[in-house]
Amino acid sequence: MKFNVAIAGATGAVGAAFLDLLEKRNFPIANLKLLASKRSQGKKIVFNNQELTVETLTKDSFKDVDIAFFSAGAERSLEFAPIAAKNGAVVIDNSSAFRLDENVPLVVPEVNPEAAFQHQGIIANPNCTTIQMVVALEPLHRVANLKKVIVATYQSVSGTGANAMKELETQVQSFVKNEPMKHEVYPVPIAFNVLPHVDVFQDNGYTKEEMKMVNETRKIMSLPDLLVSATCVRVPVMRAHSEVVQIETEKKLTAEEAKQILSKAEGVVVQDTRESGGYPTPAEIVETFPTYVGRIREDLASQNGLAFWVVADQLYKGAALNAIQIAELLIKNNKLKA
Amino acid sequence: MKFNVAIAGATGAVGAAFLDLLEKRNFPIANLKLLASKRSQGKKIVFNNQELTVETLTKDSFKDVDIAFFSAGAERSLEFAPIAAKNGAVVIDNSSAFRLDENVPLVVPEVNPEAAFQHQGIIANPNCTTIQMVVALEPLHRVANLKKVIVATYQSVSGTGANAMKELETQVQSFVKNEPMKHEVYPVPIAFNVLPHVDVFQDNGYTKEEMKMVNETRKIMSLPDLLVSATCVRVPVMRAHSEVVQIETEKKLTAEEAKQILSKAEGVVVQDTRESGGYPTPAEIVETFPTYVGRIREDLASQNGLAFWVVADQLYKGAALNAIQIAELLIKNNKLKA
Repeated sequence: MKFNVAIAGATGAVGAAFLDLLEKRNFPIANLKLLASKRSQGKKIVFNNQELTVETLTKDSFKDVDIAFFSAGAERSLEFAPIAAKNGAVVIDNSSAFRLDENVPLVVPEVNPEAAFQHQGIIANPNCTTIQMVVALEPLHRVANLKKVIVATYQSVSGTGANAMKELETQVQSFVKNEPMKHEVYPVPIAFNVLPHVDVFQDNGYTKEEMKMVNETRKIMSLPDLLVSATCVRVPVMRAHSEVVQIETEKKLTAEEAKQILSKAEGVVVQDTRESGGYPTPAEIVETFPTYVGRIREDLASQNGLAFWVVADQLYKGAALNAIQIAELLIKNNKLKA
Repeated sequence: MKFNVAIAGATGAVGAAFLDLLEKRNFPIANLKLLASKRSQGKKIVFNNQELTVETLTKDSFKDVDIAFFSAGAERSLEFAPIAAKNGAVVIDNSSAFRLDENVPLVVPEVNPEAAFQHQGIIANPNCTTIQMVVALEPLHRVANLKKVIVATYQSVSGTGANAMKELETQVQSFVKNEPMKHEVYPVPIAFNVLPHVDVFQDNGYTKEEMKMVNETRKIMSLPDLLVSATCVRVPVMRAHSEVVQIETEKKLTAEEAKQILSKAEGVVVQDTRESGGYPTPAEIVETFPTYVGRIREDLASQNGLAFWVVADQLYKGAALNAIQIAELLIKNNKLKA
C-alpha cells in the first residue's frame, strides 16, 4: 500500500529534513506533492532521483492527499490544516497551532502512541525540545512516577531556521577575517556567545519556548499536574539540541537503575562511560535518529532525584522524524487510508 | 602605602588578567615580581609602561613579598604557597589546592569578607563558576534563606586555558576553509558543539568542577547543609561564563522582589527587561567587573523558587578580579603589612 503525501513548507529547514527522511526510511509514497509559499513556486527539488516542482500552497492543494506533513508556521497550519483534513488527509502538523487543542492529539510514538489513533484529521507534532526530553522521561516515569522536571537547554541555531545557520556562518567568517560581526536574526551575535532567549517573552517572564516545554510535556505524558520549569538558551551549534534535565520521582532510582531502564528504552541510546568523551555531543549526532542520554547520576540536591544530559537532532527526532514516525505508526496499525 | 606584589603563574591566561587588573585598578604596588615556570624565564612583559622580566618560581622567590597572587596550578600552590606565607607574604591562591582546607578562608568579598581576616597566611580564591553564582545567591539568601540550588553552566573555553582558545579559533578557521577540524585539548571539537564535561570525572558521576560548585558554595556561604546540584557544560564561547540557576528559599520571593534585592546588591548588575536583547550575554560583558543577572522569574516547579541567568567574566570576577578584591579588602582594613 502506498500513499499520496504532501509536504506543506517543503522548502524550509524542516521541509528538507522531511524529504531527506522520507527517502531514508523508504516511506511508502505513491505521489509526493511539495507545497510552499508563492515565492518558492516552480522551484525544483530532487526526491528519489526524480525532479519535483514546488507548488503554491492553496486551499485546493489537498485533493487526493492521504497524509499531509505541515511545517510552514502556525498561521498557515491554522488556515490550511483544517482544509486538508476536510479533504480526507491526515495532517501531521509540526507547528504550535494545534498542540494544546484538546481535540488534537499531541504525539511522540515512544510515549503516547495510542493517542495518535484518536485524531479527528489533525495530529500535532510537539516542540523539538519537548520531544527529546519526553523520550527520555517516559521510561523512567513508567518505573518510578515522575513528580518534577527542571530543564536547561542548549539549542542549536537551525531551530531558528536556515537564516540563523547562515548568520552564524557569516559571523564566524567575519571573526576569521578579523572584521566586525553583523547580526540580523538574533539581537546580538550568536557566534562565540550564548543567548538565554528562544521564542518570544510571555507575561510571566518565561519565553514561549519554555512554556511549550511545560505544557506539552504535561499533555504528552498525560500528567496535567507535573511540575516543570524550563530555561531555554541558544548556543552557537549548527544542528541538534542538548538539555540538562533534573527530575524527581516518587520512587527512588539509582543512577545504575536509570541507566538500565534507558538502555532498554525505545528510541534511546545511552552513552555514559563517565570519562572524557563518554557522553553524547550535538555535533557528533547530526542526522541520526535516536535520542541520546548521558551523564546519568543521582541528583545531589533531592531525595529521589536524577540528573542527566539529553541530545537529539532537533530537525530529525525533534521535528520531521517524529512526524514521519507518527505516520508510520498509523500505517502499521492500519489507521491510514490510501 | 605601597606593597611588594608577586604573581606566580604570570604568563598564563589568569596571570595576564592579574596584570591587566592591577593596572586598571591602580593597585598600590611598590615592586612587582613576575614568576612562572622555568620555561618562561627571561620573558619580557610590559606593566604600567615598564618592561618586567619573568623569573623562575623557586622557594627563594618570596623574600620581601607582601602579597603573592598564585595562579600556577594546584601542585605549585601546594609546594610554594606555604613557603611564601612563611616568608611573611599573604598568599591569595587561585588554585583548588587549599579551598576546602578548614584553616584556609575561601573568600568572595561580596559574600564573606570577614573570613578574609582570619587567614593564617593563605586565602583561597574560589572556583570561577562558584564565585559568580554566590555573588547572586548571597543577597537573596540574606532576605529569604537559601535551601536549594540547581545550576547548569555554559562555560567558555578560556576556563580551560589559552590553548583551548587557540583550539577553538583554529577549528573555526578550518570550518571556514571547509577543512576537517582537529582537536587536542578537548576529546571532540568544541567549535559548533557543547560538551557536558568540565574537569575530571569523580566516582559519583559528577565532575570535579561540579563538586567544586557544591562544596565551595557551602563553605563560602557558611551553609554546610545547603542542597546543591550542578551540571557543568563547556560551550564555544571565548571568555565569560553563564549559568542557569534555580533556587528554593525558606521565604517566598516574587520575581520583582528578587530583582529589587539584586539591583541593590554589591557587585551585581541586573539586566532584565523581558524582551529581545534584554538580558546579559557572555560575549558582551568580557573584561567588565560585575556579575550580571537576568531572566529573573518565579520558578514554575517549586513553591518558593526562583530561576535566573548569571553571567560574569570568569578571568576577571571568576579569578583575578576576585583575588585582587580580597587584597584590596585587606588593605582597606589595615590587614596587610607593607
